[in-house]
Amino acid sequence: MASRRPTLRLLEQCKTNPQLKTFNPSWTPRRAASSFQSSGSARQAFSNSRRYLTLAAAGLAVASTLGYKMAVEEPVRCDTPSLAERDQQTKREKGVNDASPMRLRMEKFVKEQQKEIVRALEQADGTPFRVDEWQRKEGGGGITCVLQDGKVFEKAGVGVSVVYGTLPKPAIIKMRANHKNLASDDNIPDSLEFFAAGLSLIVHPKNPMAPTVHLNYRYFETANPDGSSGAWWFGGGSDLTPSYLFDEDAIQFHKNLKEVCDAHDKTYYPRFKKWCDEYFYNKHRGESRGIGGIFFDDLDETVSDKENTFAFVQDALKSFAPNYISIINKRKDMPFTEKEKEWQQIRRGKYVEFNLVHDRGTAFGLNTPGARVESILMSLPLTARWEYMYEPEPKSREARLVEVLKNPKEWV
Amino acid sequence: MASRRPTLRLLEQCKTNPQLKTFNPSWTPRRAASSFQSSGSARQAFSNSRRYLTLAAAGLAVASTLGYKMAVEEPVRCDTPSLAERDQQTKREKGVNDASPMRLRMEKFVKEQQKEIVRALEQADGTPFRVDEWQRKEGGGGITCVLQDGKVFEKAGVGVSVVYGTLPKPAIIKMRANHKNLASDDNIPDSLEFFAAGLSLIVHPKNPMAPTVHLNYRYFETANPDGSSGAWWFGGGSDLTPSYLFDEDAIQFHKNLKEVCDAHDKTYYPRFKKWCDEYFYNKHRGESRGIGGIFFDDLDETVSDKENTFAFVQDALKSFAPNYISIINKRKDMPFTEKEKEWQQIRRGKYVEFNLVHDRGTAFGLNTPGARVESILMSLPLTARWEYMYEPEPKSREARLVEVLKNPKEWV
Repeated sequence: MASRRPTLRLLEQCKTNPQLKTFNPSWTPRRAASSFQSSGSARQAFSNSRRYLTLAAAGLAVASTLGYKMAVEEPVRCDTPSLAERDQQTKREKGVNDASPMRLRMEKFVKEQQKEIVRALEQADGTPFRVDEWQRKEGGGGITCVLQDGKVFEKAGVGVSVVYGTLPKPAIIKMRANHKNLASDDNIPDSLEFFAAGLSLIVHPKNPMAPTVHLNYRYFETANPDGSSGAWWFGGGSDLTPSYLFDEDAIQFHKNLKEVCDAHDKTYYPRFKKWCDEYFYNKHRGESRGIGGIFFDDLDETVSDKENTFAFVQDALKSFAPNYISIINKRKDMPFTEKEKEWQQIRRGKYVEFNLVHDRGTAFGLNTPGARVESILMSLPLTARWEYMYEPEPKSREARLVEVLKNPKEWV
Repeated sequence: MASRRPTLRLLEQCKTNPQLKTFNPSWTPRRAASSFQSSGSARQAFSNSRRYLTLAAAGLAVASTLGYKMAVEEPVRCDTPSLAERDQQTKREKGVNDASPMRLRMEKFVKEQQKEIVRALEQADGTPFRVDEWQRKEGGGGITCVLQDGKVFEKAGVGVSVVYGTLPKPAIIKMRANHKNLASDDNIPDSLEFFAAGLSLIVHPKNPMAPTVHLNYRYFETANPDGSSGAWWFGGGSDLTPSYLFDEDAIQFHKNLKEVCDAHDKTYYPRFKKWCDEYFYNKHRGESRGIGGIFFDDLDETVSDKENTFAFVQDALKSFAPNYISIINKRKDMPFTEKEKEWQQIRRGKYVEFNLVHDRGTAFGLNTPGARVESILMSLPLTARWEYMYEPEPKSREARLVEVLKNPKEWV
């Protein structure tokens, strides 16, 4: 229970800190509780981090939805209040409830989920997360929570970003390829305000028998010139990356995702499972990053209505922590050899390769000037290894993993 | 002297192995001398490696010259012998001397230099390199030499690749932006045979006081339809990446490069030093990969004639080993703390970031179907580390390095 206390203490601190309330009443940077608290340089780093207030910091959360450099555009300043200002006012005056715009509901939801997940991971590890909150002067901001070198986790990052910005005309034209309702053929505006919010997480456990996991859920919306909601879509998914394959874990992970999907649409799981296998593919290695899960993008009104899709995303995100942590609890104390730890480090190397070479979200974030790089690269493991021409022994457990990565399986 | 013996033994073996002579009389896969010889899986991996016989394996050596996907094109088969076949015949009948085509002279030179450098590094470390030779059925091939987990070096890779291929028309059109003499405006051929050869190396020492080094020199040439040499250019350079900065090492490294440059053209060093600082820049970190050196590309007849440029490249390559190894000898036995080793690992992480995110040669290689990935990624360190928000203590040696990486210095 010790690990829960810092979180509760923070909530108490929040209530007495009016400066922070203006942005986000339920969070405060948890320096007091941070495992980095004794380091002067870490504190300085934290302070520096507040200067990186750019949209690009949301790289992990929203980048793959966007896919090009609209992020560096500043919102057009004019006499009418911006979408960010209007949302800020709505939150202040009315709070957020089921009748609020989806923007505010998604933001509230991912922030609540971030706290839930951080609390669950802290409980599993017994080590508090470091929490960095950062803001954008144009509106929105993010919260990056990282646990490093813990008892169970080598590195765990749980990040939320909320972004307000403006799409310039070339970006609108490009995005219309997938989203016709962004603007009508004969009336493409010079710019469109947009909103994006998402939660991203990656957990790298210490024990090589315990799998790495990645999750991301995000919402994107544009504003019509009259201030009403324009085009919208959800994206996201979750996938598992073991170094040692336990079929029962893969089955449990996929079964949980299938159940969540099936409750909303029976076509989701098979489509999103395939999409995941295709996306998280280390093309240059000819193998998948892990044993998959689900992945989807552009889930808009052509697929289902906004309420139903939000309900699906909520269920998927809520089911994550209990599902993953029950796998972790089975694996975290298993005995392992030095050789097995080394194999995990080699697999970590391949994880780094995927994230830096192929992942569109990471590339987008890193190539955007002024990005909060540390929030994007929290996805990288603490340590990794590259051995020239390393090949597992034939018929070994390591070889079996590679076999499955080369030929993705149906797990349920 | 023990480390030199395997190389000499190999040369003896070569003389008695006619099968290998047809490709490359002076080299044979050094399995017998390899430090991996006791591993069955390594042997299997070696055998597998022979199947990767594609141009893309030359990623490190020639990719940044090319910059797009011409590499997957197969040479057009016709009744006249290909450039590769003609060169093969020339070598067989006349050998290679100063009157031979530059293709054959450059190939001979980089292969000789590879042996020299491997020998010098083996001597410095006391551990033999593993040598993998691979061939392309279309002509050409490569030799990848790697020393891993040695006494002095964590990982050292020295690779040669020789590639014959065909440029399709779109590639010719694109390359003409920098090389007008590739074809005349009114007569762009449907395809052009080309040749590329280069040597690439990266050395990551164990001791954090000893700097990582990278070097690459390459030659590119097209063939006119009548078989004569068409357009040509050289590219390359060398740069140093310390974890702990010793000014005297940086000065020595740059002074050596400046002397080599000045002997050929007084404008080279300032131009190529700047080019290096600009190219090896980790944009998303706002810092250089290391303390630079020289880098150049497209060195063609608009800069100097072929003989003079080859002479410059020869001098630059020959001066590498004595220069770098004298730095290594000063640093390899220096005492260091665990904390300093950790800082080296963090710098290794940034090296991985540059190579996987920004390096055009690596990206080109990895995105080419069928690439010999292990020859491209031999550049990655054995181990690396990513700590969230790691910042060195103010005024520390670590902080001073970062300061110099953010503001490249003039060293000579």
